[in-house]
Amino acid sequence: MTKIRIGLIGCGFMGRAHSNAHNRVPNFFPELKCKPVLQAVCDSNADCVKGFAEQWGYASTETDWRKLIERPDIDVVEICVPNKYHREIAVAAAAQGKMILCEKPLCMNTAEGEEMAAAVEKAGVANMVSYNYRRMPAVSLAKALIDSGKLGRIYHYRSNFLQDWCISASVPQGGDSTWRLDVGSAGSGVTGDLLAHCIDTAIWLNGGIKTVTAMTETFIKERMHVETGKMQPVGIDDACSFLCRFDNGSLGLFESTRYACGHKALFTFEINGEHASLKWDLHDLHRLEMFDHNDPGPVRGWRSIHVTDHGGDHPYMERWWVPGLQIGYEHSFVHQAADFMKSLETGEPCSPTFRDALKTQAVCEAVLNSASAGSWALL
Amino acid sequence: MTKIRIGLIGCGFMGRAHSNAHNRVPNFFPELKCKPVLQAVCDSNADCVKGFAEQWGYASTETDWRKLIERPDIDVVEICVPNKYHREIAVAAAAQGKMILCEKPLCMNTAEGEEMAAAVEKAGVANMVSYNYRRMPAVSLAKALIDSGKLGRIYHYRSNFLQDWCISASVPQGGDSTWRLDVGSAGSGVTGDLLAHCIDTAIWLNGGIKTVTAMTETFIKERMHVETGKMQPVGIDDACSFLCRFDNGSLGLFESTRYACGHKALFTFEINGEHASLKWDLHDLHRLEMFDHNDPGPVRGWRSIHVTDHGGDHPYMERWWVPGLQIGYEHSFVHQAADFMKSLETGEPCSPTFRDALKTQAVCEAVLNSASAGSWALL
Amino acid sequence: MTKIRIGLIGCGFMGRAHSNAHNRVPNFFPELKCKPVLQAVCDSNADCVKGFAEQWGYASTETDWRKLIERPDIDVVEICVPNKYHREIAVAAAAQGKMILCEKPLCMNTAEGEEMAAAVEKAGVANMVSYNYRRMPAVSLAKALIDSGKLGRIYHYRSNFLQDWCISASVPQGGDSTWRLDVGSAGSGVTGDLLAHCIDTAIWLNGGIKTVTAMTETFIKERMHVETGKMQPVGIDDACSFLCRFDNGSLGLFESTRYACGHKALFTFEINGEHASLKWDLHDLHRLEMFDHNDPGPVRGWRSIHVTDHGGDHPYMERWWVPGLQIGYEHSFVHQAADFMKSLETGEPCSPTFRDALKTQAVCEAVLNSASAGSWALL
Amino acid sequence: MTKIRIGLIGCGFMGRAHSNAHNRVPNFFPELKCKPVLQAVCDSNADCVKGFAEQWGYASTETDWRKLIERPDIDVVEICVPNKYHREIAVAAAAQGKMILCEKPLCMNTAEGEEMAAAVEKAGVANMVSYNYRRMPAVSLAKALIDSGKLGRIYHYRSNFLQDWCISASVPQGGDSTWRLDVGSAGSGVTGDLLAHCIDTAIWLNGGIKTVTAMTETFIKERMHVETGKMQPVGIDDACSFLCRFDNGSLGLFESTRYACGHKALFTFEINGEHASLKWDLHDLHRLEMFDHNDPGPVRGWRSIHVTDHGGDHPYMERWWVPGLQIGYEHSFVHQAADFMKSLETGEPCSPTFRDALKTQAVCEAVLNSASAGSWALL
Repeated sequence: MTKIRIGLIGCGFMGRAHSNAHNRVPNFFPELKCKPVLQAVCDSNADCVKGFAEQWGYASTETDWRKLIERPDIDVVEICVPNKYHREIAVAAAAQGKMILCEKPLCMNTAEGEEMAAAVEKAGVANMVSYNYRRMPAVSLAKALIDSGKLGRIYHYRSNFLQDWCISASVPQGGDSTWRLDVGSAGSGVTGDLLAHCIDTAIWLNGGIKTVTAMTETFIKERMHVETGKMQPVGIDDACSFLCRFDNGSLGLFESTRYACGHKALFTFEINGEHASLKWDLHDLHRLEMFDHNDPGPVRGWRSIHVTDHGGDHPYMERWWVPGLQIGYEHSFVHQAADFMKSLETGEPCSPTFRDALKTQAVCEAVLNSASAGSWALL
Repeated sequence: MTKIRIGLIGCGFMGRAHSNAHNRVPNFFPELKCKPVLQAVCDSNADCVKGFAEQWGYASTETDWRKLIERPDIDVVEICVPNKYHREIAVAAAAQGKMILCEKPLCMNTAEGEEMAAAVEKAGVANMVSYNYRRMPAVSLAKALIDSGKLGRIYHYRSNFLQDWCISASVPQGGDSTWRLDVGSAGSGVTGDLLAHCIDTAIWLNGGIKTVTAMTETFIKERMHVETGKMQPVGIDDACSFLCRFDNGSLGLFESTRYACGHKALFTFEINGEHASLKWDLHDLHRLEMFDHNDPGPVRGWRSIHVTDHGGDHPYMERWWVPGLQIGYEHSFVHQAADFMKSLETGEPCSPTFRDALKTQAVCEAVLNSASAGSWALL
Repeated sequence: MTKIRIGLIGCGFMGRAHSNAHNRVPNFFPELKCKPVLQAVCDSNADCVKGFAEQWGYASTETDWRKLIERPDIDVVEICVPNKYHREIAVAAAAQGKMILCEKPLCMNTAEGEEMAAAVEKAGVANMVSYNYRRMPAVSLAKALIDSGKLGRIYHYRSNFLQDWCISASVPQGGDSTWRLDVGSAGSGVTGDLLAHCIDTAIWLNGGIKTVTAMTETFIKERMHVETGKMQPVGIDDACSFLCRFDNGSLGLFESTRYACGHKALFTFEINGEHASLKWDLHDLHRLEMFDHNDPGPVRGWRSIHVTDHGGDHPYMERWWVPGLQIGYEHSFVHQAADFMKSLETGEPCSPTFRDALKTQAVCEAVLNSASAGSWALL
Repeated sequence: MTKIRIGLIGCGFMGRAHSNAHNRVPNFFPELKCKPVLQAVCDSNADCVKGFAEQWGYASTETDWRKLIERPDIDVVEICVPNKYHREIAVAAAAQGKMILCEKPLCMNTAEGEEMAAAVEKAGVANMVSYNYRRMPAVSLAKALIDSGKLGRIYHYRSNFLQDWCISASVPQGGDSTWRLDVGSAGSGVTGDLLAHCIDTAIWLNGGIKTVTAMTETFIKERMHVETGKMQPVGIDDACSFLCRFDNGSLGLFESTRYACGHKALFTFEINGEHASLKWDLHDLHRLEMFDHNDPGPVRGWRSIHVTDHGGDHPYMERWWVPGLQIGYEHSFVHQAADFMKSLETGEPCSPTFRDALKTQAVCEAVLNSASAGSWALL
């Protein structure tokens, strides 16, 4: 058994999700030879990092990420801080020979992403970007069905990620909780935060995107900035939608917003093939919908598959409880952490690597460019 | 082409449903050799019957049902009046050699039902009871699937019919609109009105019932009687549920009430077989749910079949619009009327005949007896 | 009581829907002073038109539409033939002083539409285009809720119309059943056939559209033409999607295709406002989904409203059966026919008039232009 | 901070669920003063217990439960073994002054239950039975809504627990995985295993049950016994359904089976009150359905509440992720463990105690007696 010593940077929502994942891996994936150990956690807020370490069981703390990445007792650096810091930390950590697990989106723009991918490749270190939804059992099952050829030629792909938490003008920008509304910290709004998930899943399931036309909007033009206490212009996109064409000839339709009253985290995708179609919705993440045209005519219909079966039927589920008993959001992170540990054992890269995630970054960038130029953008 | 001259008795909700059905048969079943003609309508309320005749296109009116059944220009007598009149009218109409289409439930009790069945059989006239839901396409499809053997051995059958329109104590009893709350007119409450539908469908789909244990309740003990203007005891059952065993060894569970807040007409059934299960719900009557255990493990799930296909896939649907476009409640009456016309052409009885409907009557009676005695009742 | 004598041109699917509607109006809207009478039906196929007249009860037939529109015993001309004939018939009928009810889309292009609108306005005749979905009770209810201000500022509108009947390459183009695949007869593919419905509803519910960017595709490039028996290029759009901005500042997303395996007639819309959101789906047309942010926090959720209530709660439903019993597709045509009759009584135009429908035509044209040019188009 | 040293007996499915729960409490309920520590695990299978201890982090192991309960370093004994051992272990552990968390059902019959309740009360030790579903956020929310009086007078309660894993005759009885099919180990079949959950929730939400009439069936009469390798009669109930009356005058309907093809763990309840109704389904455990008759007529409908909100709206959810992100089955055990720890801090009993759980046991016993006698049974 090899201990893989984790050094986490960032004590926010994602820091919690990653910490929980590592804690669960030994319980649910006991056969793994590489076992994560919570070695150190780093946050610039000294009070906060102490409490976090105690709550999650980290052996030590740091307040300067540069210290953390230099520590010889750290094997993996996990980057769970706002997007604007990803590049600098990742490049420095790679230079120290650390493995890196980076939160999505990879970075602020493709130039940064190229630098990051080059850095980890030069250093020869394991690296991965946390597009966790790939490892939801229902999504993994969709991937397996598509790859099996069951759908045949693909005609359509559509996906959206709709939220409603920004409708109130009193939500501020900047700071620890709302840095996603501050363009300086996040780089973009829903495009990097939400559409990035849609795009990563789409590319994984349906292949590359070659051309896009997009539209963005900022509905609320000014919000109070937490750091200045003043009303400041909002620089991010509140909503973004785009049309696209995939390499395989299918048509795509994507939409994201934080102004869709009634949707808290409605991440959906649907793919229509010649023979069958699939649908998924994060709000009921344990279900996959499938329509199979090869069913006999009288009994053709959308099947609601409760993705909780054992015996190899449903990815990852044998690890958990018994059929019919659903798992939740956090489990995608547990599966991701386990697959990453497994990859260290086998030496195979664990997808999506930085290089893989660059493709999503490129689509995001093309989308924002298209919206800004008012024209189609090529990839 | 033979004209089948209809004489309707009763201008209420059911009178409308039957009149509409006859009006549509020639449009949607043009190949039928027997064509219904609205010859006469009868209601004791002279003003009401005139307006009804004009609205629906009846050629003449009567205010005394005895006159109507004696008219030589009437071929079919349709009985759409409160239950307490069914027996007398049916027996008299049969004696006049009229064909009879009687609203459900057949009668007030099995003794009446025996007399009615004997009368039509002696007269040798076509007869049918309006258990219209058998001819909902989704329900007809369920019947075909069960009869094909797809489900295998049956373990369970459950059905309910839940409404909520009696929760208010200000709803009266008796009169034209609320005679169903008056035990003198209706004979029973939800048992004859709602459970009778559940039971007819159950027997049709799953065979005979051999033993029952039931519970009834009258939640609101007194209601104003429309005819007297006074508060009077409520004699009907507001709610009734029962357990039973079917002849085929499966277990049954039935429930009905008019006090289930949020359900307007939730008539559902579910049948669980060894290999497959089926579910239906009147609130979305154009859908049938099916689970097929023979589907491959990874993609097993409940299928929501939108029963609107053509090409012989879905019963009756070729008559209507195009796939995906649903029909409604009234269409079950159109199908029933068309099948009755067809049966006149072929000479085959059109199920459920009076004799068939007696089985449902017997279960209703056993249910009420069981509830009253507090013990299991045999059939 | 005034008889309104109908002259129908076209014995196809739409001819049936319109004929059925007129037949039902007197039964379900008995108070109307104007009553439709099926005076004549016209189709170039002489055999077909005879059978149709008999089936639906038309008093006479024609095989030349010019004859029909000249008949003095015709008050309303109903145009239910392929799009390429709409303009010529409508202009000629208007010149004869006939009222006109025209199937959608109004015409082949906006130039034709302008001519048609001018013609009916010059003639001063009642006119309407059959965007029947406006008169689905659930859609009418959505309109009432939006107009009441319940949703507040609107952020998003999305709509699609997905079908799957063209996936097979063996479906031909042209002829009576598949003229919609022949660009010469239809003018466009899904844009005029399906998106036109989405757009009409959108404009009605959410106001004008000012700019669009679109993408179209023809997946199957050649299909056998029924009239020539030869493989010929397919000139229509098999799929079309577009992004848009509405006059009220909200963002729109539209998609249509006939290659979405599993969807027979999935016409949906969703509108997201500041305070509430609404959703509808033709596959379950009797339901409207609503989310109301003003509900107390613990019990906020999407409500599935079964649009079948009486007492003024749900538009049109009092005309039909009892709460909980759904109606179907065809009822939207009955409501439309009844509203048209009512408008003759009041003298108020019955929306959508030709002029109203021109707006939808203009959006369709902008969409096709945008797709062809690969750039945003202004309206 | 007080360490609460756990001694777990049983390494099966429930042993895993309990171990996981304790492991997560410190991460998600960091403010608790009592913190569970995995001190020892016991199983008669020596190999198995070693692996289990390693996987879950237990500090030590035992193979004789008597040794475990005598250890002074154990504060809480957790009983996760087949029902037939509950009484003996619990009584002995209480005599040792240990706190006890016992898996459901409490015991084999009410006589045993009385002895167990008396033992813990005499010893004055904290005790609880693991009816974990009470602590599903959606179920806890239902409890809060009912207790607030929102539903008014209750008319109906219905609940079922349907599974399908016993349809195959090749499933054996007895042994570690299928002891639930062996009457000697389990005491009863679905009644103690599944209906016990339905009944516990029902009593909690709707009060006491006073009279029942039940029906049971054993569909497959013989199964191979794991311990003997021989076909032996099946002594348990494969299916059980019952009608009942609650103390508050409402009517109840319960059903459970392991032969409902298509249902893996369909645990549902529905409660109908004068003003509102609630529904829940374990297959989508993060949703609660509510119908509120006080909503305005046009927009009344069943609300699907996604029980994932913060700010005090949804019980327990603030502990987890962000709104819209669902939790799973195991979280009910985490909440239970946390509430138990909290109760040690406050000194308040943590419901359901042994005494509370005796009520459910009594209903189960009455149900089985009623089924066996074929008559109503009083409680």
